Amino acid sequence: MKLARLGPPGAERPAVVTPGASYDLSGLTADLDGAFFERGGIEEVRRALAANDLPTLPDAASLRTGPPIARPSAVVCIGLNYAAHAAESGASPPEQPVIFLKTPNTVGGPDDSVAIPRGSTKTDWEVELGVVIGRRASYVESPDRSMDHVAGFVVADDLSERDFQLTVSGGQWSKGKCAPGFSPTGPWLVTPEDVDHRALRLRSWVNGQPRQDSTTADMIFDVEFIVWHLSQFMALEPGDLVLTGTPEGVALSGRFPYLRAGDVVELEIDGLGRQRHEMVTG
Amino acid sequence: MKLARLGPPGAERPAVVTPGASYDLSGLTADLDGAFFERGGIEEVRRALAANDLPTLPDAASLRTGPPIARPSAVVCIGLNYAAHAAESGASPPEQPVIFLKTPNTVGGPDDSVAIPRGSTKTDWEVELGVVIGRRASYVESPDRSMDHVAGFVVADDLSERDFQLTVSGGQWSKGKCAPGFSPTGPWLVTPEDVDHRALRLRSWVNGQPRQDSTTADMIFDVEFIVWHLSQFMALEPGDLVLTGTPEGVALSGRFPYLRAGDVVELEIDGLGRQRHEMVTG
Repeated sequence: MKLARLGPPGAERPAVVTPGASYDLSGLTADLDGAFFERGGIEEVRRALAANDLPTLPDAASLRTGPPIARPSAVVCIGLNYAAHAAESGASPPEQPVIFLKTPNTVGGPDDSVAIPRGSTKTDWEVELGVVIGRRASYVESPDRSMDHVAGFVVADDLSERDFQLTVSGGQWSKGKCAPGFSPTGPWLVTPEDVDHRALRLRSWVNGQPRQDSTTADMIFDVEFIVWHLSQFMALEPGDLVLTGTPEGVALSGRFPYLRAGDVVELEIDGLGRQRHEMVTG
Repeated sequence: MKLARLGPPGAERPAVVTPGASYDLSGLTADLDGAFFERGGIEEVRRALAANDLPTLPDAASLRTGPPIARPSAVVCIGLNYAAHAAESGASPPEQPVIFLKTPNTVGGPDDSVAIPRGSTKTDWEVELGVVIGRRASYVESPDRSMDHVAGFVVADDLSERDFQLTVSGGQWSKGKCAPGFSPTGPWLVTPEDVDHRALRLRSWVNGQPRQDSTTADMIFDVEFIVWHLSQFMALEPGDLVLTGTPEGVALSGRFPYLRAGDVVELEIDGLGRQRHEMVTG
């Protein structure tokens, strides 16, 4: 099942997207937020859809696609989670997950323009599998139990400014990760039964030229391990977004130029949809 | 003026605290949150207080003190912002502010018990001057304009697990900063005219024994510089919390033992009040 939020920024309408039509969820919930996931809202949608109980959204195709979740309470990211990307970044593969955070106000729609931060010369793309938390996760017993806490999956671009992240940061990455709009998310939240999250092809392009092309099967730490591991150090809240790391093929490698205003970034993960955002002057 | 949130966790009532009495702000605002600060809520409180227009909270003294702000959208922290603390941490004073984030669900009341995380042997205290953002700050023109974006100041304990932060983290500190309850905040939000934030004595004790005793005058980067600097890399939202770094005298120095269940941590900043939290088994 594919959930979406359609409409102008700040006034998105919750929807469920099917091959035939999109249906309005406004009667069921004000938003796809932590409270919705916590109360089992996804099951409510499933039942309403099966019962043919939802009004269609006739103008869905003409609406902007927002991020498929309301602003999360946290965006938790895993660094260097693909061996080839660690190598292109000049780092060794980590022995334990490396965690950093982005501010929640970085989350934007998948196709919204993104401003290059002022003073930036090294803005970089990162396609990532995003995990949306459905149930609070604190001290999860084992990785086997992690999926009990997952609402679904999204495409995300973990945009990064490499000078801010690495050169003027004292080594703490968040400085280069938090510019407004730096986490385009969506188009859809896809529930776990619809994809095999352990083997999803994920790709990115800049101006139509291929950049990243890997599979989530190459993750050093998989989704189940990540959710379990994070929950030993923090409490993940319903509606939170966990970004699971990016594969090789970013500009930091030296193989490609950094982004400039006018560049178009596209990302796709099998079954999770495609993003297309234009970079603009900040 | 001192604002507070009084009552059980999740059901705190907004209040203004004066030497004679505490007054209920529930008629003015549901909470001390971003929307309240953004609409100029502090000025509304000031006018209502001057007009003698607020009901007293007769049972204020019997109520739990919550954090004086609703859950922020971000908790942004400055690392190594006092030279003597940088030295005791084995680091050089930074040339630019070092930024890391805590998850917003770490914010708790000033006197709430705090769980030592499971598996922790190195839980450490850090008294800090906290800055509450009153107006969105993005690309602030100069440090001179920073105070236009500040609602007030708070005491905060930037609790830290040093093994999680430094040993199993791959160098990214957030892993040791985000355990539930790890940011006790309050008792009050004090508006800027009531304190000279450039020269506030800040102290901590463990089981009544002194630990930290410094002044905000010793900060490497002052409040005005920090808010301006952060706004070049991210957008600070109304209600966000910025922690400005801790002075020397933490357990990481090797001079004091780390915290154990049963220990009592007290923090005080002149004019901003005092915290007292007991550490408990996680």
